[in-house]
Amino acid sequence: MFLEYPVDCEFPIENLPYGVFSTPQDKRRRIGVAIGDYVLDLSIIKHLFNSKNLINHQNVFEEETLNAFMSLPCVAWKEARAILQRILGRNDGTIRDNAELRAKALFLQKDVIMHLPATVGDYTDFYSSFYHASNVGMMFRNKDDPLLPNWKWLPVGYHGRASSIVVSETPIYRPYGQIKTDQADRPEFGPSKLVDFELEMAFFIGGPATNVGEIVPIEKTADRIFGMVLMNDWSARDIQKWEYVPLGPFLGKSFGTTISPWIITMDALAPFVIANPVQEPAPMSYLQHNDPYTFNIHLEVSIKHFILIIHKCFSNMYWTMKQQLAHHTINGCNIRPGDLMGSGTVSGPVLSENSFGSMLELSWNGTKKITVGNQQRIFLHDNDVVNLKGWCQGDGFRIGFGDCRGKLHPASMKK
Amino acid sequence: MFLEYPVDCEFPIENLPYGVFSTPQDKRRRIGVAIGDYVLDLSIIKHLFNSKNLINHQNVFEEETLNAFMSLPCVAWKEARAILQRILGRNDGTIRDNAELRAKALFLQKDVIMHLPATVGDYTDFYSSFYHASNVGMMFRNKDDPLLPNWKWLPVGYHGRASSIVVSETPIYRPYGQIKTDQADRPEFGPSKLVDFELEMAFFIGGPATNVGEIVPIEKTADRIFGMVLMNDWSARDIQKWEYVPLGPFLGKSFGTTISPWIITMDALAPFVIANPVQEPAPMSYLQHNDPYTFNIHLEVSIKHFILIIHKCFSNMYWTMKQQLAHHTINGCNIRPGDLMGSGTVSGPVLSENSFGSMLELSWNGTKKITVGNQQRIFLHDNDVVNLKGWCQGDGFRIGFGDCRGKLHPASMKK
Repeated sequence: MFLEYPVDCEFPIENLPYGVFSTPQDKRRRIGVAIGDYVLDLSIIKHLFNSKNLINHQNVFEEETLNAFMSLPCVAWKEARAILQRILGRNDGTIRDNAELRAKALFLQKDVIMHLPATVGDYTDFYSSFYHASNVGMMFRNKDDPLLPNWKWLPVGYHGRASSIVVSETPIYRPYGQIKTDQADRPEFGPSKLVDFELEMAFFIGGPATNVGEIVPIEKTADRIFGMVLMNDWSARDIQKWEYVPLGPFLGKSFGTTISPWIITMDALAPFVIANPVQEPAPMSYLQHNDPYTFNIHLEVSIKHFILIIHKCFSNMYWTMKQQLAHHTINGCNIRPGDLMGSGTVSGPVLSENSFGSMLELSWNGTKKITVGNQQRIFLHDNDVVNLKGWCQGDGFRIGFGDCRGKLHPASMKK
Repeated sequence: MFLEYPVDCEFPIENLPYGVFSTPQDKRRRIGVAIGDYVLDLSIIKHLFNSKNLINHQNVFEEETLNAFMSLPCVAWKEARAILQRILGRNDGTIRDNAELRAKALFLQKDVIMHLPATVGDYTDFYSSFYHASNVGMMFRNKDDPLLPNWKWLPVGYHGRASSIVVSETPIYRPYGQIKTDQADRPEFGPSKLVDFELEMAFFIGGPATNVGEIVPIEKTADRIFGMVLMNDWSARDIQKWEYVPLGPFLGKSFGTTISPWIITMDALAPFVIANPVQEPAPMSYLQHNDPYTFNIHLEVSIKHFILIIHKCFSNMYWTMKQQLAHHTINGCNIRPGDLMGSGTVSGPVLSENSFGSMLELSWNGTKKITVGNQQRIFLHDNDVVNLKGWCQGDGFRIGFGDCRGKLHPASMKK
């Protein structure tokens, strides 16, 4: 039965993440919720969403993406969660006792195909891990003063490429590009030799779209954060190095960004909130909030099934998601439901190598070998499979993020 | 009659640009073509598109944006143009002699509201004017060696914010943000003091979407360039200066980017193609093309009706649009119809001040005053109206780009 699952199940009734799936028999994309080993098809049970803020919007559950549901006010998201927790609860017979409905609405996760959960209008990537920024600064700038002057004043970020955001299991291809070594006097063309992963988390924007010129003040940001996913911001370090001054990363990143298919809601993550990091200097008032909005999420990276990195350092993030969003809109930049905002690489301090969130750091810019099973790496090899995992450990249950997996295929020039 | 227009009309039968409009009486967004002083509503005459590659796709003319039409292969765009030139020609009675059809399908441009012509999935801005890059390099880097080493090897570009691309006449608001002067030891918060325009052109991508891992080889790029618009990449120089290292421009740009409403097709621009600039060093082979793809477009900027800049320097661009697109996809970055790619600020050389495409250059980083009518400027004042114009001068006709106009409203903090 769909409510039977072990204590380490990633998708217990406390989780209830949203995704978009299809089946081999029915290729329509539908919105589902993960429960135990199953997916519940919300298009089949949309009539059960009878609460005040959903009754006139049941059609959002018939869409092919989550954007319409995300566009509803956050009170509607809370109502949907309450309804799902009720109808999936042990004391409710709505689904449990209706064999016909179960047959139509429940699918084993192993039998479905997952798709991008939302159309991403804009994708922004921040750079908010103090340790990652410090590690990179130590490598490329100054060992004693690794952070740039703006880093502690604002959450540094940049616009990324939305089209190449793909869902877990989508093939990634080693990119071609221009590469210039320090020794050479001119760049060469070829496949990147330094393809890396970046362990990130990202959040989806919800609520109605804003207009150009409107801000989202920090006290309203929580109402605009729909939920979170894992993200692998694949990076070609050699392409990036040659291209990125002065306008930032471009083709070194835009060959693919993988996200996990299930969006974990902020309500599911709420029990795992912990104190925010101390920020010194104190942020400007538009970036100040006193309530905790830092989440204790365990993260893990594996290459070819060998676990490479274990840490719980999403709690290490210096800037909170509230601050990222308040900053992003303080200039009047408008947001739309489905916009995705990444954390930047999540890393721990130099003293704790197994908390580094990229091979750039693990290999300390190529100066050290990384052990992967019985092999060694500096950067990724062709056919390496990188998987990210994340979870919050509750008392007798676990809020899991599923998989964020991608295989790096050899370079090709498909036309 | 709709075919009567003066020789300096921007929208003669040789032009036929596409846009999206509505009327005060009928708020549906519809696809239209500009002809003389009129807009022809293509949703009303979609049945006339009976050619081989359009007959099964007439529904694209009933959409609220041009994305579906753009997604057809370029041969379909050519067929649409041929049909429009025929039915709007002097010898054809299809529209001319059908008063009922004329009443339903023709509107005066002055009576319609123009909208964004397409949903922009991703917006990329290049930095391809040699003179602009040189001018900025002279100001901020090195007078004798102003270009960075990568500039002549690849068309430098970055991902911009798609959500804040707005159509001509949309209000722009002076942005708030963090600003740090050279003298201060910490940043301050307030409205930008250095809001600028940037005179740019941009092109829309057409043809079917590609997949992650596919390239668009340079010999196929022309089939993927649907048409061009004028673009004002509003910029807050002080916000940009403090934020942009190391990840590039962010909030200094994302408060608004204005484009002109009519997309001028490459077929309309074809008579104005001229030789490409000499490129030294020779570009890598994936960036080489021998056919001319540089366009002789006159450009003009006015502030409050005072013409500030006159030049014909779109022909000054160092990198062609073909090269920009081939570079953008060489890493496997996928493209979608409706993607927008900007040229970067179009500027002329230092010796020709009235060819500078930004106030940053006109005021030489604030060291000179700029005369606007009987007033002076260094950067933009509140309530300044900036308009960009562009046209190609043919023999007895003109291919115009219409207006790309925006008013800079005072800073506010709308929530």
